[in-house]
Amino acid sequence: MAESLPSEHKAVRLHPNGERRIRVETIPAPRIEHPDDAIVKVKLAGLCGSDLHAYRGHEVIDQVITTGHEFVGEVVALGASFAPEATAKNRPPLYATLKVGDKVVSPFTSSCAECNFCRLGFTSRCANSLLFGSVLLEGGQAQYVRVPRAGGTLFPIPPHTSIPHAPTAEQLTSLADPSLLLLADILPTGVFAAIQTLQHPKVLPVITGRPFPLGSMSVLPAGEIIAQRIQSGGVGVELLEEDKILNLAIVGLGPVGICALISLLDLLALNKTSYNITAIDLLAARRAKASAIYRSLPDSARGSGHFAVCGTDEAEATVAAQTKGTNGEGIPGCHAVLEIVGNNSALTLAHTLLRPFGALISVGVHQTPPVPFIGRALYAKNTALEFGRCPVRAVFPLAAELLLRRQDVFGKVGGDEALVDRVVGIDDAEEAFTRFEKGEWGKVIFDPWK
Amino acid sequence: MAESLPSEHKAVRLHPNGERRIRVETIPAPRIEHPDDAIVKVKLAGLCGSDLHAYRGHEVIDQVITTGHEFVGEVVALGASFAPEATAKNRPPLYATLKVGDKVVSPFTSSCAECNFCRLGFTSRCANSLLFGSVLLEGGQAQYVRVPRAGGTLFPIPPHTSIPHAPTAEQLTSLADPSLLLLADILPTGVFAAIQTLQHPKVLPVITGRPFPLGSMSVLPAGEIIAQRIQSGGVGVELLEEDKILNLAIVGLGPVGICALISLLDLLALNKTSYNITAIDLLAARRAKASAIYRSLPDSARGSGHFAVCGTDEAEATVAAQTKGTNGEGIPGCHAVLEIVGNNSALTLAHTLLRPFGALISVGVHQTPPVPFIGRALYAKNTALEFGRCPVRAVFPLAAELLLRRQDVFGKVGGDEALVDRVVGIDDAEEAFTRFEKGEWGKVIFDPWK
Ligand SMILES: NC(=O)c1ccc[n+]([C@@H]2O[C@H](COP(=O)([O-])OP(=O)(O)OC[C@H]3O[C@@H](n4cnc5c(N)ncnc54)[C@H](O)[C@@H]3O)[C@@H](O)[C@H]2O)c1
Ligand SMILES: NC(=O)c1ccc[n+]([C@@H]2O[C@H](COP(=O)([O-])OP(=O)(O)OC[C@H]3O[C@@H](n4cnc5c(N)ncnc54)[C@H](O)[C@@H]3O)[C@@H](O)[C@H]2O)c1
Ligand SMILES: [Zn+2]
Ligand SMILES: [Zn+2]
Ligand SMILES: [Zn+2]
Ligand SMILES: [Zn+2]
Repeated sequence: MAESLPSEHKAVRLHPNGERRIRVETIPAPRIEHPDDAIVKVKLAGLCGSDLHAYRGHEVIDQVITTGHEFVGEVVALGASFAPEATAKNRPPLYATLKVGDKVVSPFTSSCAECNFCRLGFTSRCANSLLFGSVLLEGGQAQYVRVPRAGGTLFPIPPHTSIPHAPTAEQLTSLADPSLLLLADILPTGVFAAIQTLQHPKVLPVITGRPFPLGSMSVLPAGEIIAQRIQSGGVGVELLEEDKILNLAIVGLGPVGICALISLLDLLALNKTSYNITAIDLLAARRAKASAIYRSLPDSARGSGHFAVCGTDEAEATVAAQTKGTNGEGIPGCHAVLEIVGNNSALTLAHTLLRPFGALISVGVHQTPPVPFIGRALYAKNTALEFGRCPVRAVFPLAAELLLRRQDVFGKVGGDEALVDRVVGIDDAEEAFTRFEKGEWGKVIFDPWK
Repeated sequence: MAESLPSEHKAVRLHPNGERRIRVETIPAPRIEHPDDAIVKVKLAGLCGSDLHAYRGHEVIDQVITTGHEFVGEVVALGASFAPEATAKNRPPLYATLKVGDKVVSPFTSSCAECNFCRLGFTSRCANSLLFGSVLLEGGQAQYVRVPRAGGTLFPIPPHTSIPHAPTAEQLTSLADPSLLLLADILPTGVFAAIQTLQHPKVLPVITGRPFPLGSMSVLPAGEIIAQRIQSGGVGVELLEEDKILNLAIVGLGPVGICALISLLDLLALNKTSYNITAIDLLAARRAKASAIYRSLPDSARGSGHFAVCGTDEAEATVAAQTKGTNGEGIPGCHAVLEIVGNNSALTLAHTLLRPFGALISVGVHQTPPVPFIGRALYAKNTALEFGRCPVRAVFPLAAELLLRRQDVFGKVGGDEALVDRVVGIDDAEEAFTRFEKGEWGKVIFDPWK
């Protein structure tokens, strides 16, 4: 089923050592290697904070790799599994419907849709998952990219009717490519952080107004019976209005942190939950962008609450001031803190900002140091922690729906209120990595054909 | 409102240093010190694994303390807040209804029922909480004990009608005191571990059959709208029957571990969830008791699943054998592991036994060492962790209901299938601490009048 593919293509390559670690090189173009593969012709590829882990040497690589894990493109070749006669035998819907010519967005990891993890929605830890732009799988900052398990991985725009989430299917087609690219990683990861926060059993009592453990147990199949056993939750007192105000902090206001903020605000508004949110970053430019974006949102997109932005030094005082009215008698702290940085100083700050029975939701990519927590402190605060990689494929529908509704932010390129700073040609990759790493450029997108 | 109280009473005292650290001494009896106080005449007081933290010196004390945090007794004096004219002004129900002569069980921490934490069900981190048997509050291994914030803390047997959970109110009266004593700590803590496990967003997809994030988001007020946005969870494939088998491990089979096991089995049966459970302890005697209790349960109390008991050395292999059928292709591990020990080797083992997107539910009391986790490993496994103290007061109704239904286990004193090993006079406290610490005696209960 392969179209005629070129023998060579341009790709951004990261070298393990040496002076110029990032180079744009012409190398052999990818080929179908397995019946489940697709070859995608890349229209746009994102440069992302996660690319910096290897670039900075925090993540050691032992060979040259093609970088990039965010791309939108067009299917130009498919393996034998996608032939109509082959797809009869019980493959997931996408294997049957994916066609050469489809416009697709790819999650930053491949996933098969055929393993226990995928079926449960844990696609980022699919038994057959690979990370684009790693030593195991060439990345998307290139003209072409090979997508393994393409029938589980790719998300066609518009979605095929056999894929859930029909309501927004047609509308997605109207979106510009830089906006669609956000679906590869940063927007779903922000949504992932937000939903892990709001669905956490230690947070649910505030949102549902039903005390622990009633709020969270009711979702079980036998929830009704359990609720009868628990009745009012054991203590037998009503929640006050002030108990239903959710205190949150976000540590790290890079692109993912901003996406988490927008998703949080959207879900809080939808659930009519009042909030205090403190948004924290080391860098003034990042704080300014978060403020500008918050201010630019329509009321319907940010519900009812207080929003403060500050540096790490003022974080404790800001949270204390925001939360003293609800926690009571001198107990500062948040019901949940989102850590969207990826280092131990951010984890330490996040835990400091938590109140007892708080949840630390970490989506930062962490490296080899032990986490900076004492067992007694976690016990003493009844801390909950969540770590890990976003299951983009499972979060896709929610993220796509938010992308559509929030085009006022996600549809912009450049300017104070835009997440995407600029689109540049792939030949500028070396400069882009340098400037992006220094914070001189915000989120950069490569056009491999420009 | 105080009855005539004796001026002195017998109490078990732990001395910070010296040869005989545990001594039964005659000391001044407690008095009402605050209008919210009650004095309880202790009928029975438990000796517990948690008492050993200070006894062994892992938790340093700087003064002599009266030990014990588990007691059942009778209210013999009440502060001024409980006078009918005083309780009119908006105190929680128990302040109005608690009477001299009431039989009561106390959670191992006091709680006020009047702060934000109490209203949310987080009673163990009540803004006014104190731990019985600590330097801040005399313990219950004595003839009398002072209970602060008694209107929020104490649970009358039978519960007053103004207190939730009427169905089991009368029946609780039929239970023997050693059985009621389990409500002070170990049974609610076991229930707490079990419900934190089953209600966890990373576990819910297995139980509800709805993939992440659908299973857990649906409990939000706007759950319907969110569900429409997510639809089938994003991947668009149905769960298989094998995906709905829950793989669990319990590390630590002391009294709390056994209570967690029984509660887990009960909730799994109620929700018709099939399971594989591996129960792990260093000590053969503890393993034997867990096996005997499991075998003694009626079918209705343990639902459908596989149960294995093993030492720490065989834990990985046992879990791998149990779980290979469901996780798929060479990925061993549990959806959740309960850590009910309180040291780093148990935490390390628990994390090893988790599969990706697994939840480590720790109720062990941890001390000053840093927790033994590398950030990268937590990220790579998408690990969730829960730590902390059981909010006994909030979990009381669920625990009481289970206590009633599982009298076949919880009603026994002595023998292979009993949680409580023996009831001894308070004068035997010194011997009891020694033998309990060595594992020669199982759970001991003191009768301070024998
Ligand atoms: N879990 C996932 O699936 C997933 C997906 C995408 C990105 N990530 C990770 O999320 C993190 C954020 O991604 P990004 O693209 O927004 O990165 P980024 O580097 O653009 O942003 C990180 C921000 O954190 C700030 N920061 C650094 N140290 C801080 C501290 N101690 N306190 C407060 N702020 C601090 C920086 O100034 C920066 O603005 C990275 O670790 C990235 O690798 C994870
Ligand atoms: N979170 C709470 O609110 C709460 C309440 C009560 C008790 N606790 C704590 O729960 C823990 C258990 O309480 P318990 O009364 O059952 O204690 P226990 O000491 O009777 O039981 C602990 C068991 O763990 C076993 N063990 C020790 N190290 C192990 C290892 N590395 N791997 C496997 N097993 C190991 C021991 O052999 C023992 O059987 C203690 O830390 C206790 O302080 C917490
Ligand atoms: Zn990225
Ligand atoms: Zn898979
Ligand atoms: Zn105890
Ligand atoms: Zn309280």
